[in-house]
Amino acid sequence: MTGNILGERFVVVSFGESHGKCVGAVVDGCPAGLELSEADIQRELDLRKPGVLSVTSTRAEEDKVEILSGVFEGRTTGSPICMLVWNKDVNSEHYRVFVNRPRPGHADYVAHVKYGGFADWRGSGRFSGRVTASLVMAGAIAKKLLSKTLGIEIMAYALEIGGIRAKNFTLHDIRSKRYSNEVRCPDEVVANEMIRRINEVREKGDSLGGIVECQVLGLPVGLGEPIFSSLDSDLSRALFAIPAVKGVEFGAGFAAARLLGSQNNDPYTIVNGKVVTVTNNAGGILGGISTGMPLIVRVAFKPTPSITKKQMTVDLSSMKEVEIEVKGKHDPTIVPRAVPVVEAVVAIVLADHAIRAALIPPVLRVSRKDVWK
Amino acid sequence: MTGNILGERFVVVSFGESHGKCVGAVVDGCPAGLELSEADIQRELDLRKPGVLSVTSTRAEEDKVEILSGVFEGRTTGSPICMLVWNKDVNSEHYRVFVNRPRPGHADYVAHVKYGGFADWRGSGRFSGRVTASLVMAGAIAKKLLSKTLGIEIMAYALEIGGIRAKNFTLHDIRSKRYSNEVRCPDEVVANEMIRRINEVREKGDSLGGIVECQVLGLPVGLGEPIFSSLDSDLSRALFAIPAVKGVEFGAGFAAARLLGSQNNDPYTIVNGKVVTVTNNAGGILGGISTGMPLIVRVAFKPTPSITKKQMTVDLSSMKEVEIEVKGKHDPTIVPRAVPVVEAVVAIVLADHAIRAALIPPVLRVSRKDVWK
Amino acid sequence: MTGNILGERFVVVSFGESHGKCVGAVVDGCPAGLELSEADIQRELDLRKPGVLSVTSTRAEEDKVEILSGVFEGRTTGSPICMLVWNKDVNSEHYRVFVNRPRPGHADYVAHVKYGGFADWRGSGRFSGRVTASLVMAGAIAKKLLSKTLGIEIMAYALEIGGIRAKNFTLHDIRSKRYSNEVRCPDEVVANEMIRRINEVREKGDSLGGIVECQVLGLPVGLGEPIFSSLDSDLSRALFAIPAVKGVEFGAGFAAARLLGSQNNDPYTIVNGKVVTVTNNAGGILGGISTGMPLIVRVAFKPTPSITKKQMTVDLSSMKEVEIEVKGKHDPTIVPRAVPVVEAVVAIVLADHAIRAALIPPVLRVSRKDVWK
Amino acid sequence: MTGNILGERFVVVSFGESHGKCVGAVVDGCPAGLELSEADIQRELDLRKPGVLSVTSTRAEEDKVEILSGVFEGRTTGSPICMLVWNKDVNSEHYRVFVNRPRPGHADYVAHVKYGGFADWRGSGRFSGRVTASLVMAGAIAKKLLSKTLGIEIMAYALEIGGIRAKNFTLHDIRSKRYSNEVRCPDEVVANEMIRRINEVREKGDSLGGIVECQVLGLPVGLGEPIFSSLDSDLSRALFAIPAVKGVEFGAGFAAARLLGSQNNDPYTIVNGKVVTVTNNAGGILGGISTGMPLIVRVAFKPTPSITKKQMTVDLSSMKEVEIEVKGKHDPTIVPRAVPVVEAVVAIVLADHAIRAALIPPVLRVSRKDVWK
Repeated sequence: MTGNILGERFVVVSFGESHGKCVGAVVDGCPAGLELSEADIQRELDLRKPGVLSVTSTRAEEDKVEILSGVFEGRTTGSPICMLVWNKDVNSEHYRVFVNRPRPGHADYVAHVKYGGFADWRGSGRFSGRVTASLVMAGAIAKKLLSKTLGIEIMAYALEIGGIRAKNFTLHDIRSKRYSNEVRCPDEVVANEMIRRINEVREKGDSLGGIVECQVLGLPVGLGEPIFSSLDSDLSRALFAIPAVKGVEFGAGFAAARLLGSQNNDPYTIVNGKVVTVTNNAGGILGGISTGMPLIVRVAFKPTPSITKKQMTVDLSSMKEVEIEVKGKHDPTIVPRAVPVVEAVVAIVLADHAIRAALIPPVLRVSRKDVWK
Repeated sequence: MTGNILGERFVVVSFGESHGKCVGAVVDGCPAGLELSEADIQRELDLRKPGVLSVTSTRAEEDKVEILSGVFEGRTTGSPICMLVWNKDVNSEHYRVFVNRPRPGHADYVAHVKYGGFADWRGSGRFSGRVTASLVMAGAIAKKLLSKTLGIEIMAYALEIGGIRAKNFTLHDIRSKRYSNEVRCPDEVVANEMIRRINEVREKGDSLGGIVECQVLGLPVGLGEPIFSSLDSDLSRALFAIPAVKGVEFGAGFAAARLLGSQNNDPYTIVNGKVVTVTNNAGGILGGISTGMPLIVRVAFKPTPSITKKQMTVDLSSMKEVEIEVKGKHDPTIVPRAVPVVEAVVAIVLADHAIRAALIPPVLRVSRKDVWK
Repeated sequence: MTGNILGERFVVVSFGESHGKCVGAVVDGCPAGLELSEADIQRELDLRKPGVLSVTSTRAEEDKVEILSGVFEGRTTGSPICMLVWNKDVNSEHYRVFVNRPRPGHADYVAHVKYGGFADWRGSGRFSGRVTASLVMAGAIAKKLLSKTLGIEIMAYALEIGGIRAKNFTLHDIRSKRYSNEVRCPDEVVANEMIRRINEVREKGDSLGGIVECQVLGLPVGLGEPIFSSLDSDLSRALFAIPAVKGVEFGAGFAAARLLGSQNNDPYTIVNGKVVTVTNNAGGILGGISTGMPLIVRVAFKPTPSITKKQMTVDLSSMKEVEIEVKGKHDPTIVPRAVPVVEAVVAIVLADHAIRAALIPPVLRVSRKDVWK
Repeated sequence: MTGNILGERFVVVSFGESHGKCVGAVVDGCPAGLELSEADIQRELDLRKPGVLSVTSTRAEEDKVEILSGVFEGRTTGSPICMLVWNKDVNSEHYRVFVNRPRPGHADYVAHVKYGGFADWRGSGRFSGRVTASLVMAGAIAKKLLSKTLGIEIMAYALEIGGIRAKNFTLHDIRSKRYSNEVRCPDEVVANEMIRRINEVREKGDSLGGIVECQVLGLPVGLGEPIFSSLDSDLSRALFAIPAVKGVEFGAGFAAARLLGSQNNDPYTIVNGKVVTVTNNAGGILGGISTGMPLIVRVAFKPTPSITKKQMTVDLSSMKEVEIEVKGKHDPTIVPRAVPVVEAVVAIVLADHAIRAALIPPVLRVSRKDVWK
């Protein structure tokens, strides 16, 4: 399979460029009978929209989703669902120079070489963060599917920005507050610190990275197909598809490498007649299979490569070093906008695995009354 | 595709269980004309063999590889290559109890639930580290293919064990020393510390985790198929297929999340007429595509879950808590043995991408003299 | 992979319904650098348009293709190409009854069961011949790619309609005349007989089937990946995706079953220094691999199931037999309109295999002058 | 995916060569809990064994299947099942000449070109009919799975050999007699004629082709994933993987092309409260989806290309025409031995689709008594 297609039974095809006509996705394999409207998708899309957050970029994108196929009389039909958001007219001209003078930290140079000079360079083209809109659209369907059929809840949030880490927050905080502040951090005290730090760095023309954590509640035991389609394998593959991701870890993650076996092993116990573990260093995955405990994954985002500070690069025509400035308004950190993208990506992978495991059937049975008029 | 098959154009199929008849792999898509003998594979297999390292387990595995198909007159034919190692008779009986009393940190419980009680529990069955022999066999072919056609060099080593981290080592140390000490660490002073720590912990019936780092030299610009088959996406997917992996990061990785954009961006420059970056925080990947700089990936391994200390678990029949002891000789850390496995997995993914990118042709042209007798 | 996605390296995703908003396709994996405009696709689409043929249906479809992504400054970029044609407003109401009273020979009943009553029934929804527009759009790219890079020529034509078979025609006739008459038959005398027969049957409210033959010239030796992705395997799979196809045969096909081995074997000879066969009963494929001789495939189409004659069916609510009439203007035979669809499908499969075999590179090198302005 | 791997959820990997060490298959995705022994597979393998039929070749193959993985305590575990038959020592030397002087009708020439001279030529290597043993092994599992879970019955038989066609036979004849005569024909009178004709042709050093028909009873409505994984698409793809197949048709097939719509459409009716069709010209498939009526597919086999008559070919070194004789004992027709292969291939595809449609669950629930001892 080629690079813009993900999944086995809930398949996502991504298309579109930053400054082309549109960004879109096709979902093939969504079970028939799921209630679905453009509003369901718009809600998720709005969460990644720039401009709603003062801490992020100010490019105005309206991003009204349009469903082109696969939904009939308010429900999915079992046929491929094509969705897109149209791009607004934007001025791309100032990106032209980067084809020849690649921006550090961006894909300009590799795209130029790989596609032989034919890549669409406008607004970073296919390598723009804007392409994540296709993930969010597909993820919106996956989230609704998982929620309606299995009661699965997926919650991501900014755990850390610029080295400032959320400390005190409960599950309830995550649920209720993660989208109520500008940095999508469940610890509101820390959220304010993060915002201060972002503004400080922005003024210097610099940028920050951070860590998004995602928890999934309500997962059944048994998702994942070892060894190569292990749940962690497939989640990490999909998460690294998000631009700027440099690390993925589950449960104790890299810290597990420093624990003793006796510390890291999660002892089993019984709670309410159910087998659970006392701790959850495994992050809900053992042997590549979901344990039924909360799935916990952390995703490291590098600082936004677009900074207004002067940087060194090379001119590919003259093969000489030159200085460039990347002008324009850029996100001083993409972490807050990445939060709904991480949720979407996790949802896509879980929906695929839930269908593979036959936990979600090809047709969602609803009362006949609903179907027949 | 199902879970035991990896890749698009250089495809690996893994089969076999720890205490079944054998562990094996089929490689489909290897170009025709590669010189290949059992000795090529045996060399790699021997590196993961237990017993050669005093710091790891003492189970005696001979592991003589046998090539069953796809090689004729010393060269690959373009047909699927099936390889296997036969298992020796082992006593599996003491594993029976874990079906009902799952070991913490192992896949016993999830395997039991997912496969409805039908999983082969002998020696952890399909979830045993022994299954990585199939990765090493396939990886041996991939490594040779990459080396012979593109001059690509893949080197993994223990960067950290039990929190003790290698500090002083050069590329030359990595090349020459990583397989010359028992922990596969290029910093020989630290290697001795690691060994001391391992022995200390082993005596207490406990275990250690660690971090394997892998560097790849000689990669061309342009490998990777964004967005879902990005080079980091596919590498991480394959690396999480290795048992006990809890985190994967590239270049600066999680540390990048704490850098400023101006620190993390790698400026371009020209060296010997070639475009390179001054630093390599990207770890050789931008936008999911290889930059031509060394690829750097780190893989976090949890401590071996098999410890002789008593642990709490539950009895699935009585649904009561019970204490278990996991007897026998176990690796106090699997990091040293994981080193060749990481190399193998990285090689498999890179071979697949090199073929996809048409950098390795379907037939390796050799002089006609070689072919015809 | 799910059912609406075809191919490995030149991948086609089909979406859209007959009376929904649009019918479209995404092509992922098309090499970068191919000159491509909407006119290239429109030309092919126009060949399957109804209304241009007096012998086919009179539904007016404008079918103006729109390229939404993957093309920049007149060339493919290596990113996914999304294309679609918008549907015009149509009155779907008279199809509603068929949900409950399935039309014989149509997919109404199976779609109803498989998708639990949620399928889009308007205009046969996803099972409409209109969905073949997605194949023609994708095929237009494949045809251009094959022609520009390898000089491959793909020519389909009506060999037989309603039992009337073309007899006398040369390769030159196929090239020049197949699109010059209303039935796309290279034998113009027979073409007139076919037209008479079609008109005769149409007046009786009945319909005709036929056979489309396709020849491919200029194929190199070596396309096809035995055993399961043999060239005949992949071609037949794709051809059966066209609605109404009931049989596929290569070369002598079913007639080969009645020949002696000594008659059917194609002896080798040398012509102009090239190895060729004297006869071509193999139809250009041996062992699932192209021989370099013309590829010859025949595709049997059943008569259009939509006929105005009264037919017996059942009412799914009352579970009683009822009589239905399928009103409206329908194609009395779909063979002429299937001709460009067969060409498209064959082109898609061949483009995929040519890329797999590294005969078409990921980037089409053109003179630098073309690329840089 | 590469060419030796078939399926999505019930995946078959084929490996091995005619005169190499073995021929084998890996099945990945078989549900856990299926009772399976080597005897189950041996029974099917014995049906394709040469030597048991006086009308076929006399090469003695013992073909004892060995299951190497995926089965534990008599049941499938959910892990990949590797099976193989070892090849006996055979003299391959007389095949060497065909590398340079390709046999008409065989894959010698295309294999030589495609694999650059590296293909294993011994006994036709990977292109030998012997490779179908891998299909039969995998098919044996599929057949048992379909029979035990859904009661599906798959029956193939020789419909026609050398132009002599079975005329009078009932479903009962198919069931009871197809394996009771040497040509696997349910019409015993015609069977004798076929045998006479085969012997006649054999004496002249020539060979015959024929048609295998396969009927599947007990299929539920709804298998198949339009448009590209339609049931007919996937069946035809897999059937063309069998060597010597030149045509595939469903139901009325090519004859449908000559029927009127009013003749070809199958009217619906109710029998025993179930929706069925009065006729079955569709062959059990409409719109690429199973209708619940018997699936009927016919497969055209060309005459065995190995004939002892002298044939013209070319010498690839001198590039001159030469005459060759293909010595040895060869099947004068492969139709009888192809019968169990067709059954196997059909079973593999149906098993895959039944799992995709969630009609067969990932774990076959059996009484707990069966599982626990």
